[in-house]
Amino acid sequence: MIPERTIGRLSLYRRILDQVLDQGRTYIFSHELAKLSGNKPAQVRRDLNVVKCPGCASKGYDVQEMIRCIDSTLDGPDKQRIALVGVGNLGRAVLHYFLGRRKKLEFAAAFDRDHDKVNRVIHGCRVYHIDELNDVIRKENIRLGVITVPVSEAGHIADLLVHGGVRGILNFTPAPLRIPPGVYVENIDITSAIEKVVYFTDLGNREKEKE
Amino acid sequence: MIPERTIGRLSLYRRILDQVLDQGRTYIFSHELAKLSGNKPAQVRRDLNVVKCPGCASKGYDVQEMIRCIDSTLDGPDKQRIALVGVGNLGRAVLHYFLGRRKKLEFAAAFDRDHDKVNRVIHGCRVYHIDELNDVIRKENIRLGVITVPVSEAGHIADLLVHGGVRGILNFTPAPLRIPPGVYVENIDITSAIEKVVYFTDLGNREKEKE
Repeated sequence: MIPERTIGRLSLYRRILDQVLDQGRTYIFSHELAKLSGNKPAQVRRDLNVVKCPGCASKGYDVQEMIRCIDSTLDGPDKQRIALVGVGNLGRAVLHYFLGRRKKLEFAAAFDRDHDKVNRVIHGCRVYHIDELNDVIRKENIRLGVITVPVSEAGHIADLLVHGGVRGILNFTPAPLRIPPGVYVENIDITSAIEKVVYFTDLGNREKEKE
Repeated sequence: MIPERTIGRLSLYRRILDQVLDQGRTYIFSHELAKLSGNKPAQVRRDLNVVKCPGCASKGYDVQEMIRCIDSTLDGPDKQRIALVGVGNLGRAVLHYFLGRRKKLEFAAAFDRDHDKVNRVIHGCRVYHIDELNDVIRKENIRLGVITVPVSEAGHIADLLVHGGVRGILNFTPAPLRIPPGVYVENIDITSAIEKVVYFTDLGNREKEKE
């Protein structure tokens, strides 16, 4: 099993390499990728060893080959089907961002209570009513869920997802989810992140005032 | 200086307490807040000690008093003015979420290149052209910035913000920002979070298949 931080770095390398490829480059040295990603060259070389990516001392790494090695580690053999619950601003932002970006990742269904959104296709993804959640994720064989609903609904939605067979959740609400063992949860708390910036920046000011 | 994790928990407690207050409750015990926030009661009591919140053994903590104690720690004495750069889906989601939610936090200006957005007020925040960034953040005395632009622009935008006097940044792009010492940066990488969920969930499946 590859550690979480390594997975995070591989995810970042891949996005940088996509850009490098768009710029028409076919080879890259580890020290260049290190600079672009904000890591040390030795770290980059260790990570590329993990995904068994062969390098060449004189030319560096073949960019396409490197992307393929990261793909096969991060994406797994099968296409991953994802459900998104809560088609507000944040939900739309997530759908829009991923539209057509990763071949192996597909937002296969979205859910909302708002009848103006239900039965529409938003950023390439069909929106169903939340009451249909259990049926749709079973029928569509969806194993991953993204929760972008208001915090008060998060617990209920997580229960529905897990009951329907979802085994991995990205939770954008600050609600701590009570989920059974065997379900992987990753949390992103945007409010808390902003409040950290406020606190630690303000602290800098206060310390300066003291000087 | 309070550690980052404590700040994160205090931010979460405050949002839970806002809800508790909305439900008409005036007192809460530490073990209740612990359950609602997914922490241990002893942890909650230590955190409340940090913000000097007095409790009562028989009635628990006064909810409004607790919010006031957290406010005075997290928010600092002055109103914090924030600039948001990149008014796409994610930028709108952030503006919308914070609209009127925190008295001491104000999104004072937003910036974009799109002329259809410039000079409009979106979710309570005026949108300026990116070329005006330096002038506006100086004039408005803005010290905090949120970056929700495409990754290729992030470095340039961070430079502009810092040059204009910003000292705290929340960066939603995967680009590692090269910023001078004294500027606090918090990163949220949504793609990497989703790819972690994909990897660790798929790994669960693979391990199950092996059994």
